[in-house]
Amino acid sequence: MAQDITLLWGSGSPPCWRVMIALEEKGLAGYNQKLLSFENMEHKSEEVLSLNPRGQLPAFKHGDVIVNESYAACLYLESTFKASGNQLVPDGAAEQGLMYQRMFEGLSFFDKLIAVVFYNWVVPEEERHDSALKRNKEVLITELKLWEGYLEQLGPNTHLAGQSFTLADVVVFPTIAAFFKFGLSADRYPNLGEYYARVKERPSIRASWPPHWLENPEIQDDLKDI
Amino acid sequence: MAQDITLLWGSGSPPCWRVMIALEEKGLAGYNQKLLSFENMEHKSEEVLSLNPRGQLPAFKHGDVIVNESYAACLYLESTFKASGNQLVPDGAAEQGLMYQRMFEGLSFFDKLIAVVFYNWVVPEEERHDSALKRNKEVLITELKLWEGYLEQLGPNTHLAGQSFTLADVVVFPTIAAFFKFGLSADRYPNLGEYYARVKERPSIRASWPPHWLENPEIQDDLKDI
Repeated sequence: MAQDITLLWGSGSPPCWRVMIALEEKGLAGYNQKLLSFENMEHKSEEVLSLNPRGQLPAFKHGDVIVNESYAACLYLESTFKASGNQLVPDGAAEQGLMYQRMFEGLSFFDKLIAVVFYNWVVPEEERHDSALKRNKEVLITELKLWEGYLEQLGPNTHLAGQSFTLADVVVFPTIAAFFKFGLSADRYPNLGEYYARVKERPSIRASWPPHWLENPEIQDDLKDI
Repeated sequence: MAQDITLLWGSGSPPCWRVMIALEEKGLAGYNQKLLSFENMEHKSEEVLSLNPRGQLPAFKHGDVIVNESYAACLYLESTFKASGNQLVPDGAAEQGLMYQRMFEGLSFFDKLIAVVFYNWVVPEEERHDSALKRNKEVLITELKLWEGYLEQLGPNTHLAGQSFTLADVVVFPTIAAFFKFGLSADRYPNLGEYYARVKERPSIRASWPPHWLENPEIQDDLKDI
């Protein structure tokens, strides 16, 4: 199974990390993989473009099946390897509904993080506005409060869609980890802080921790005032 | 079944339309529904906020299960009503992989449409730049060419993930319909044009066609030069 899978990835990219967590959870460790450098523009290399015409990472292949979008690859892995490793879609309709809901809210959560932390990277210099960055920060704070509330409502020691670790955690945990890497305050967001501290010890997540975060564990201060 | 379902929706919103197509496909016509007006800001009403704290449409409820994100609701409906109506997830791994891949590429497709057609609505006047809108248009053309190529490769009379109509069509068709409503040229994008002309006759899509498009079938010219 694992030997039929190939993943091209970049360190610290939440989309790549999602797929790596799913692979670990499904007991597929040992897949073929290659770490590429965003800085050296290796995501625009022929090797990537031959799998992913968008020139983005992850690029994922299982046999002849190419599934590059990170959410797509996670859903594909759970569906194709249903009986292997951990079950990532819960059985009950209510739990499934909450899982899907949080997965897709997770896309907004990620976009809003990018719109603040990578504002200068995403927006050319002559198009930047303090008013836009200020608004993006306000939107991000509103979003963070929503997730604080979701965790509060579920109670301690739960996951994003209830008791079990599900695809919602697979796809949203890397975003939450990025928030704390960029300096989010666990004092100000205690439920997210508790979730992060607990879930980061999970074996699938330890096994896929971004290598350049291990080399340089320093916390940045981009989000310290958020 | 259908009587346990409630949908609050707005006319012409691709996210709302996705869920309505899924409901029709799963044989759930007759669900409770209420058409709300974006213009009158009814998506920010107490009625919506009590289901969807984001104040967005669709707002969707099945029994006590609330699933507002449109992709989430479609996945939930297929999973919960697997045996009803039409099967929307194909059986084979290759077809499933392609379906998930196209579904999630569909989010970029939609975002890039919005970034052009609703540029003035999304960006405050003092933050607008011709250079940004020009770039957004170039990005949109590149995206359209990708989808033209996908359809070309699959051959005539197919759907987005192969022979069958799947969740990829459920979630991406409303975006493609919006492109043509905003004046995209079927001469310039013949594969998308053929797909649109064929799939719009599908019963689930005819049954859920945006009522204000029926009232005013005129084609806008926003995308005529794209």
